[in-house]
Amino acid sequence: MKNKQTMITEKQKMLQGEYYNAFEETLLQDRKKAQNLCQQLNNIPDGTLEERSDIIKQLLNTDKVVWIESPFRCDYGYNIDVGENFYANFGCVILDCNLVKIGDDVKLGPNVQVYTATHPIDPKLRKSGKEMAYPITIGDNVWIGGSCIILPGVTIGKNTVIGAGSIVTKNIPDNVVAVGNPCRVIKDIE
Amino acid sequence: MKNKQTMITEKQKMLQGEYYNAFEETLLQDRKKAQNLCQQLNNIPDGTLEERSDIIKQLLNTDKVVWIESPFRCDYGYNIDVGENFYANFGCVILDCNLVKIGDDVKLGPNVQVYTATHPIDPKLRKSGKEMAYPITIGDNVWIGGSCIILPGVTIGKNTVIGAGSIVTKNIPDNVVAVGNPCRVIKDIE
Amino acid sequence: MKNKQTMITEKQKMLQGEYYNAFEETLLQDRKKAQNLCQQLNNIPDGTLEERSDIIKQLLNTDKVVWIESPFRCDYGYNIDVGENFYANFGCVILDCNLVKIGDDVKLGPNVQVYTATHPIDPKLRKSGKEMAYPITIGDNVWIGGSCIILPGVTIGKNTVIGAGSIVTKNIPDNVVAVGNPCRVIKDIE
Repeated sequence: MKNKQTMITEKQKMLQGEYYNAFEETLLQDRKKAQNLCQQLNNIPDGTLEERSDIIKQLLNTDKVVWIESPFRCDYGYNIDVGENFYANFGCVILDCNLVKIGDDVKLGPNVQVYTATHPIDPKLRKSGKEMAYPITIGDNVWIGGSCIILPGVTIGKNTVIGAGSIVTKNIPDNVVAVGNPCRVIKDIE
Repeated sequence: MKNKQTMITEKQKMLQGEYYNAFEETLLQDRKKAQNLCQQLNNIPDGTLEERSDIIKQLLNTDKVVWIESPFRCDYGYNIDVGENFYANFGCVILDCNLVKIGDDVKLGPNVQVYTATHPIDPKLRKSGKEMAYPITIGDNVWIGGSCIILPGVTIGKNTVIGAGSIVTKNIPDNVVAVGNPCRVIKDIE
Repeated sequence: MKNKQTMITEKQKMLQGEYYNAFEETLLQDRKKAQNLCQQLNNIPDGTLEERSDIIKQLLNTDKVVWIESPFRCDYGYNIDVGENFYANFGCVILDCNLVKIGDDVKLGPNVQVYTATHPIDPKLRKSGKEMAYPITIGDNVWIGGSCIILPGVTIGKNTVIGAGSIVTKNIPDNVVAVGNPCRVIKDIE
């Protein structure tokens, strides 16, 4: 009898948060596709809204109203589930190896980095090339300041503000202001 | 009698530090213009100095000697008032929704982020789309290390050095070295 | 008898960690060459591996297997000594004014900044245009998380992991996890 484990694709392992091989052929092809779309998006003048909108819809597989400034980079695109009125300023990077769920009315300052991707701490395991990815969730009406980094597995609650330059290593609740490296709550929003 | 308030344009509100609508048509057109110039600047080879210089003069409305590496991004360009011998390394982002006054002999490391733009903390107000911008001043002969972030309303005094990766949330005086997140003075310069 | 000092080129001074003039003609030409290659690399679609590989080999003067995502920027290219299986994700910047020695199996997350370049703290000296550069060494099998900054003169030991968003101001030993601004060891790896 065949081992059921062997039937799971690298993509399925990736989405389940298990060790997987990111250089497997299907995943490579999917990243190529996304990176070519990003390249197209980044090479047209920022002002050409209809063209931009078409590429973004294709990249993120969405019909939502989404405004993303150039340059923008992501790994797959199809793992980003974006809400209404999403805005991302210049230089946003989303490593969407696992699901990145973004609520409505979310604003990202310039250079925001959203990383679902991670590697083993164990040197031998890391050297073997295996890697992992954990989902990220950003609630409705969240504003993430410029150059923040959101790390794998993190959830940010609705209405919350993350100060510029913060490194978000753990979950942040609804209705707070949080800042710093590592990012910590400094204020409740009434 | 008409209310005088209604006569103020969104651009005037923006420059006065009041709530304004960044997606008003004139402001959108101005950003388009700037972003197209940035795109031109970023797409020509770095080495072509004359062409670069022409675009930069047009973008920043200046005759000063200015050296800006690609890529560079700004919102309007005309709100950046740059001194002599300005140098900005790769990846500089200036959100110049309000005035960014830069002295003579200022050096920015790679990836420096200068943000005059901000949003309300209040969730309802932020969701309404209103935003604000506060001026930033960088004194003569300041050196800002790579990947620093300068936040809205900040003034950095002359001759001061800001260490790489600092988040400058408050004013920094003349003749000091300051570092960290948030950025704090660690040394006087004699 | 001629003073021996006067025979040393700006490039030699740069590589010896002495004050030098980065805008001397030979150095300018070398940077132009590197920046044009970077521009070529960054303008071709990410998926076109053979073309990318050719440009990277020319830029870094290497025959190693190297995978660098776009955009990538460096100053000279020839001062980067890269090991086998090097991977750098989107937006890597290497200011290689002095030697950047990278071991085998090194992984850089997105937006990692490697800066050998620095300027004098003394305001008069800095204004004169003199600058300095100190070598950086990254050991075998090191993983540097996204948006980290590695500062001039730093050595990072083998198998070590640097957490995302860290500012590495001092040497970090082998086999540790280190994080923060400034970056500090938080864990040994057994």
